[in-house]
Amino acid sequence: MANPKIGIEILSASGPGILHATTGVIARHNGNITSVEIIEEGKAGNDHVYFEIEAQGDPAPMLEDLRKLPIVRHAAQVATMEKIYGKRIIIVGGGAQVGQVALGAISEADRHNIRGEHISIDTIPLVGEESLAAAVRAAGRLPRVKALVMAGSLMGGDIEQAVREVRAQGLLVVSLNMAGSVPEAADLVVTDPVQAGVMTVMAVADTAKFSVGRLTRRIF
Amino acid sequence: MANPKIGIEILSASGPGILHATTGVIARHNGNITSVEIIEEGKAGNDHVYFEIEAQGDPAPMLEDLRKLPIVRHAAQVATMEKIYGKRIIIVGGGAQVGQVALGAISEADRHNIRGEHISIDTIPLVGEESLAAAVRAAGRLPRVKALVMAGSLMGGDIEQAVREVRAQGLLVVSLNMAGSVPEAADLVVTDPVQAGVMTVMAVADTAKFSVGRLTRRIF
Repeated sequence: MANPKIGIEILSASGPGILHATTGVIARHNGNITSVEIIEEGKAGNDHVYFEIEAQGDPAPMLEDLRKLPIVRHAAQVATMEKIYGKRIIIVGGGAQVGQVALGAISEADRHNIRGEHISIDTIPLVGEESLAAAVRAAGRLPRVKALVMAGSLMGGDIEQAVREVRAQGLLVVSLNMAGSVPEAADLVVTDPVQAGVMTVMAVADTAKFSVGRLTRRIF
Repeated sequence: MANPKIGIEILSASGPGILHATTGVIARHNGNITSVEIIEEGKAGNDHVYFEIEAQGDPAPMLEDLRKLPIVRHAAQVATMEKIYGKRIIIVGGGAQVGQVALGAISEADRHNIRGEHISIDTIPLVGEESLAAAVRAAGRLPRVKALVMAGSLMGGDIEQAVREVRAQGLLVVSLNMAGSVPEAADLVVTDPVQAGVMTVMAVADTAKFSVGRLTRRIF
């Protein structure tokens, strides 16, 4: 059983060595780092370093030791991204379709988030087999992604291969009913883009009774 | 001048020590890590570890050394998230408004991405002062975020304070024309949600001539 995840934000001087120094302190306190982001702040020569850590027990002594590092100007516990932005659904494809799927998904996510879920709807309008296949594969490297919606009119070739790869990694893939071989590779095929967005949210929401595995049809 | 960023994906056995071992190799090759994600793969006991690194010269020797680690099953260079998902615009607020802002933003991002830009539109429908203020502050800890759109009917209090904080960090904040004090704290106030989405994309796109700084009005 994993320890509870906490977020830690550090403000430090810009430059190399930050990660080495801070991860050393976290390791000494038996923190298991699951995510690190280093955000450069253009203006002031500061870096914001954001960690997500599975921490054992009280994080206060670890924070104390982080604050003792000469390069650290500020260190504080913050809510995790999982708690704030939650599960992510990523919609990729043509602008017209991505917009309509997003409308359905955002509307449905609103209904679940009001009841305590945390679901984000992330999108990118893209054109071309290569950039779409790259976006599908990269979704498997992004944190908190649970499902992908393929929102276009024609998708096949390497995009189909990429869909099969991320499904094998555990992502749910919903496809609009469209030309090309991508629908064949998806978990679920939906014709209406608004419904595709709604169904994808229902499939990942713990507040919904819907489950793709229980459906007797795969195409709607 | 920073070195070019590269992405490296590693497939490793699950468990602690991955980060310590791999960051050691990367440091020896003078790679400057800017982002790390550790994605657990439920099924097979594998972890996907994704690094973004400012690398000096050819990354091949570093990859070779990573592959020599006993816990590493696979290591390969991949395109960075900046290259695939690019700049992020985050839309937060009520479902009705978030959906309309997203429609405008996705449609406009499509037009820029076709010309070589990389702009993602990310959204979360949320309710309540506390969760909205947390989402605004967390946007400053997420990678590649350039702008935030406040899409609601009434926002004030601690949300206003959070808006001022992320603006000080360098984020552009666009607000719908709404009740409460958030519009006063924003860079730009737009009444029509579709136009708010379009203008925000124009403001962050290098393919657009639009710049918020050059506008003679702040409210539309």
